[in-house]
Amino acid sequence: MRILITGGDGFCGWPTALYLSRQGHQIAILDNEMRREWDHELGIGSLIPLPTMEERVAEWQKHTTSPFRAYHVDMRDYDALATAIIEFQPEAIVHFAEQRSAPYSMIDRDHAIFTQTNNIIGTLNLLYIMKEIAPDCHLIKLGTMGEYGTPNIDIEEGYLTIEYKGRTDTLPYPKQPPSMYHLSKVHDTHNIAFACRSWNLRATDLNQGVVYGVQTEETLTHPLLTNRFDYDEVFGTALNRFCVEAAVAHPLTVYGQGGQTRGFINIKDTVRCIEIAALNPAQPGEMRVYNQFTEEFSVQDLANRVQHAAQGLGFNASIDHLTNPRVELEQHYYHAAHTKLIELGLEPHLLNEEEIRTIIQMAIAQKDRVRMEKIKPTVTWR
Amino acid sequence: MRILITGGDGFCGWPTALYLSRQGHQIAILDNEMRREWDHELGIGSLIPLPTMEERVAEWQKHTTSPFRAYHVDMRDYDALATAIIEFQPEAIVHFAEQRSAPYSMIDRDHAIFTQTNNIIGTLNLLYIMKEIAPDCHLIKLGTMGEYGTPNIDIEEGYLTIEYKGRTDTLPYPKQPPSMYHLSKVHDTHNIAFACRSWNLRATDLNQGVVYGVQTEETLTHPLLTNRFDYDEVFGTALNRFCVEAAVAHPLTVYGQGGQTRGFINIKDTVRCIEIAALNPAQPGEMRVYNQFTEEFSVQDLANRVQHAAQGLGFNASIDHLTNPRVELEQHYYHAAHTKLIELGLEPHLLNEEEIRTIIQMAIAQKDRVRMEKIKPTVTWR
Repeated sequence: MRILITGGDGFCGWPTALYLSRQGHQIAILDNEMRREWDHELGIGSLIPLPTMEERVAEWQKHTTSPFRAYHVDMRDYDALATAIIEFQPEAIVHFAEQRSAPYSMIDRDHAIFTQTNNIIGTLNLLYIMKEIAPDCHLIKLGTMGEYGTPNIDIEEGYLTIEYKGRTDTLPYPKQPPSMYHLSKVHDTHNIAFACRSWNLRATDLNQGVVYGVQTEETLTHPLLTNRFDYDEVFGTALNRFCVEAAVAHPLTVYGQGGQTRGFINIKDTVRCIEIAALNPAQPGEMRVYNQFTEEFSVQDLANRVQHAAQGLGFNASIDHLTNPRVELEQHYYHAAHTKLIELGLEPHLLNEEEIRTIIQMAIAQKDRVRMEKIKPTVTWR
Repeated sequence: MRILITGGDGFCGWPTALYLSRQGHQIAILDNEMRREWDHELGIGSLIPLPTMEERVAEWQKHTTSPFRAYHVDMRDYDALATAIIEFQPEAIVHFAEQRSAPYSMIDRDHAIFTQTNNIIGTLNLLYIMKEIAPDCHLIKLGTMGEYGTPNIDIEEGYLTIEYKGRTDTLPYPKQPPSMYHLSKVHDTHNIAFACRSWNLRATDLNQGVVYGVQTEETLTHPLLTNRFDYDEVFGTALNRFCVEAAVAHPLTVYGQGGQTRGFINIKDTVRCIEIAALNPAQPGEMRVYNQFTEEFSVQDLANRVQHAAQGLGFNASIDHLTNPRVELEQHYYHAAHTKLIELGLEPHLLNEEEIRTIIQMAIAQKDRVRMEKIKPTVTWR
């Protein structure tokens, strides 16, 4: 299959590109390398030293016989994006190329507006290109479980069948996104649903949970193929951050009471979910939604698990409760469906102590590069 | 009350400004006059000759003793918008200043992206200004009934109490907007709800139906105070367009079967609804939603009513069914709640033959200015 991966230089995009390439698919990644610029802007960076996009692409080309190429394109540039798509003729487009950090979107007004316009314009450009020159191509779009917020009823996969005053309809699941970033994903979802309804496009919206883990089999093949690893307050996610804190003997920093419950997924399952979606395309006119996570944990659960694993490695790993910089419920109902990808063959890698130990050991190996001042939350929702 | 009206030079904004001024409120309008530029872009214009913004403001100042002023500001310009708000210190901000035509948003990709970014950025700028310098100000935001689409269950006012698998919650009403413009309003709604939840702002979102009618008591006071009147395919709404067609002995052009049912409101009620919202502000942290329309009609109903009124004036007024340029259901369930503004005191002007005759007679008076080639739909959703 010819698969274009936008955002293919990123934390999820890069391992996805390598995994799909190894399955024999023809891959092109497309990226503007903006994620690397944000490292400079914020004075942060991957804990594992990162080769350039050119270096990692050249390295992978030595490891595969399938065509594998890269486009340096900003999705907001319609002409450049269209040119790449006309040239590559993808059968599926996996769209990761968005600003994906909630704290980054909440830094200030400029970052909020950047996040919303960047994400919306990139996706609209893609939808118009598909309408005009690739109407049969399958869009696989990364959304987020955060779109749903924390409703007091079960979360279903994208749609909800509602019985109301003796009538019934299946409607888009109501959304209560908790940041300017999550809002941008909700806007995308509405725009894509419209394009499927009105233009008969086909799309799969993958509402991904919080991703943890670092490497996949492919990224471990050679040091130049490594995935990036973020632990800072802006781009680091809870489990990865806790592991770094444990490795440098810093207390694990839980925001608020830690009762916030979310869906989580291992990066090794992310790459497999994308392949499952590609091999089982949506129908013309259909916007299919899958909830892409494998387990639910509260933030406190995660901290306890990291603490236990760290203690096994001889670390103390105390737990600190910080004032929560976000506006969110710290105790709430949370029960979200996630059966559709399983039904299509996903075999989850569940979180175990071995996995946590691997992350902590990776952080220990890079210990001298950890910049503790970048972990404490400074961006506030209030 | 000090009330700022953004988009105060427009079809709804101008009569609202005059009405509120006449009730004794201190009014500032704020507008970038972009609506007038779109007339040039599309080669269209108000059927009633329109004075400049400067002329109409100067004229109204002769008719009122309350302070009444104008700011020439683009809402995407944060600094200019903030400066106006700091200077005027509004207690309520009525926000009409958006691109409000579905066909305009569907002309092509550029117009779609313009509509979404223009509307989103203007509203985000306003929300950030309120957060930072006017946290107690009441935002009265114009949304649209079109946000809901045509679900197969009753439409409620912004929220839906859902019982599901033995649990219950009141959630944002699921949205299925039918154009890039309607999508932009849904995006705004989510952004505003977030600002109320996270920043404790207060907002009223008025989901307005299709507005018909032209003048109010105030706009009739002097020719320089007239409202604009659009009948073209891009900015004209169904009833107004039918009246112009009748006046020039052209068949009334119904899109498709005409079974599309929508909520409608007289411009005289629009201005009153805004005052009701202003006098009864939302609570801090609350985003209140009112459905702002008074009656439901199908497009065919409207055509029949205009035909009847026109025949009473001696016109033939046949009805033509055109291929529908939009992607929408032409037969569907439609039942939408609209009691909250009534409960607060709205006394609706219902559509009667007198009202339709007035519009037709206005069109007859301006008959020589009608440009028939601008009525036929050329913008398509497909």
